[in-house]
Amino acid sequence: MRSSEFSLIERYFRDTGLNQKSTILSQGDDAAVIQVPTGYQLVTSIDTLIEGVHFPESTAAADIAHKALAVNLSDLAAMAATPAWFLLSISLPDTNEKWLEEFSQSLKSLAQQYQMELIGGDTCQGLLSVTIQVNGLVRKNQYVTRSGAQLDDLIVVSGQLGNAALGLAHLQGKTKLPETLDSECINALNRPVPRLCLADFLRKYATASIDLSDGLVGDLRHIVDRSRVGAMIYRDRLPVGEWIETNSLYDYALGGGDDYELCFTLPEKHLDQLNDWNRDNQDCFLSVIGEITESGYYLTENQKIIDLESFQGYQHFGE
Amino acid sequence: MRSSEFSLIERYFRDTGLNQKSTILSQGDDAAVIQVPTGYQLVTSIDTLIEGVHFPESTAAADIAHKALAVNLSDLAAMAATPAWFLLSISLPDTNEKWLEEFSQSLKSLAQQYQMELIGGDTCQGLLSVTIQVNGLVRKNQYVTRSGAQLDDLIVVSGQLGNAALGLAHLQGKTKLPETLDSECINALNRPVPRLCLADFLRKYATASIDLSDGLVGDLRHIVDRSRVGAMIYRDRLPVGEWIETNSLYDYALGGGDDYELCFTLPEKHLDQLNDWNRDNQDCFLSVIGEITESGYYLTENQKIIDLESFQGYQHFGE
Repeated sequence: MRSSEFSLIERYFRDTGLNQKSTILSQGDDAAVIQVPTGYQLVTSIDTLIEGVHFPESTAAADIAHKALAVNLSDLAAMAATPAWFLLSISLPDTNEKWLEEFSQSLKSLAQQYQMELIGGDTCQGLLSVTIQVNGLVRKNQYVTRSGAQLDDLIVVSGQLGNAALGLAHLQGKTKLPETLDSECINALNRPVPRLCLADFLRKYATASIDLSDGLVGDLRHIVDRSRVGAMIYRDRLPVGEWIETNSLYDYALGGGDDYELCFTLPEKHLDQLNDWNRDNQDCFLSVIGEITESGYYLTENQKIIDLESFQGYQHFGE
Repeated sequence: MRSSEFSLIERYFRDTGLNQKSTILSQGDDAAVIQVPTGYQLVTSIDTLIEGVHFPESTAAADIAHKALAVNLSDLAAMAATPAWFLLSISLPDTNEKWLEEFSQSLKSLAQQYQMELIGGDTCQGLLSVTIQVNGLVRKNQYVTRSGAQLDDLIVVSGQLGNAALGLAHLQGKTKLPETLDSECINALNRPVPRLCLADFLRKYATASIDLSDGLVGDLRHIVDRSRVGAMIYRDRLPVGEWIETNSLYDYALGGGDDYELCFTLPEKHLDQLNDWNRDNQDCFLSVIGEITESGYYLTENQKIIDLESFQGYQHFGE
């Protein structure tokens, strides 16, 4: 593919998102220049999605764009940061204008929703792969990490778990969902909602936080390890849909990836604030699924205690 | 590949580079947190290298690591920024420990040389591909762009042009270099030197700047377009090696990519400073190759004037 064709591609990504007032120099130069406002710190992360590894080949351009940005926004959400800027590096097998139009429109739409600005990037020829690097802002030291969980903290997750993994299993023919459910689960897989609405709540009350990309058990383990504590979670408290409950498919909720819900720890004294949140935010319901203990990592299931140390985490579908 | 194997991979990248004092939170969380010092702005860029597109499959791990970071540092050099932090997203077909050891050692070595710290990243399974996102610092508004070139400015390039493209042509069997030259040119291809030593000079004297990744004619055109000026360059002033001169292989210098030298514009009144620089910096010699004109884009070659508008730029080897 000629460089000139890539200049064409780059046109699709101009004016993506909303201009940030602290952008000093945006796309079109060797690098972008940004000004971090006084009293703020920059929160920065990078994630790559590869066709055949992170999404099936049949995935629509608009879904790929949404997911590539959403999974990065989810990292900012876990840190309680406010999104600001992003960079895009995309490799494409060819210049399919319809595909590019759909991809860039979807990217723009999500970027605008969360007031992000695309300030630079790189395009080249290769297998389909999308890398996004996001930059968010937090007031000085007001971020939340994986390492602050304390003994007796409650373990909380947002939304429902396991739907994205169910959707993937359905697409792969590993399970058969009823018609009423398949589009909902495939939507959960392709269009995760970054839980940025929780940023204020996390900053005020959470002691540790992580986003659920590889599955609850694997990801909560990072909080456990980094905070040097233990955890007990209860299967009957996991927020799951009726299908998982009826068919006892809890492995999707425990080990299924791609939920992009947040999992965080909360001192018990803030349970009132959690209940207040749930009264006002039905679309981002918070569930207490367990508590932080001194040591060990366990699941209580039908009055049995299961050691989670050897629990097999989620594997992406290409693995 | 299992997530647990990726945790192993990530160990290779811990403590890469030098700790920056303004790093608030480095690797190991959902995102990193950095503090931009008061009075500074952040300069940010991203570049991907893909096997088979940006480097041949035979390329050594250490060379890939060097080049992936160096091409990003070169973008910071062109903006006259000082390197500070970087993020790495790497996809690998498998976990080859010897390869990872070589790659990470080379990355560490270059990161330390330029006082960069690796603060985060992402690893996954896929074809070999390396994306690096770099962050540098400039004092408020002291960066240099592509858009400031003025009428009668001198056009200057650093180092020698065409060696990397000669090295690639040799590897591809398109040309046969003498033994004394092939390792030098292959080194130019695999181990570009980011011209960060020029940052102060650029900040003080340059009106516009770009790094040469796609070849002189294509890249200088960006300065011409963005500055809304014209340019005249002279073939006999191009800094080339003896082999190019003797065999009249100037197309390598004009259109060959991967040099990662800097091309910048300089008001004529600063010619003394350029001569002073050359007296003190023989390893980064600056050559005046032309001047900025009102309009048009031309090369003077053997007393003929050639229009560069239709000049075919560099194509990466996989194209």
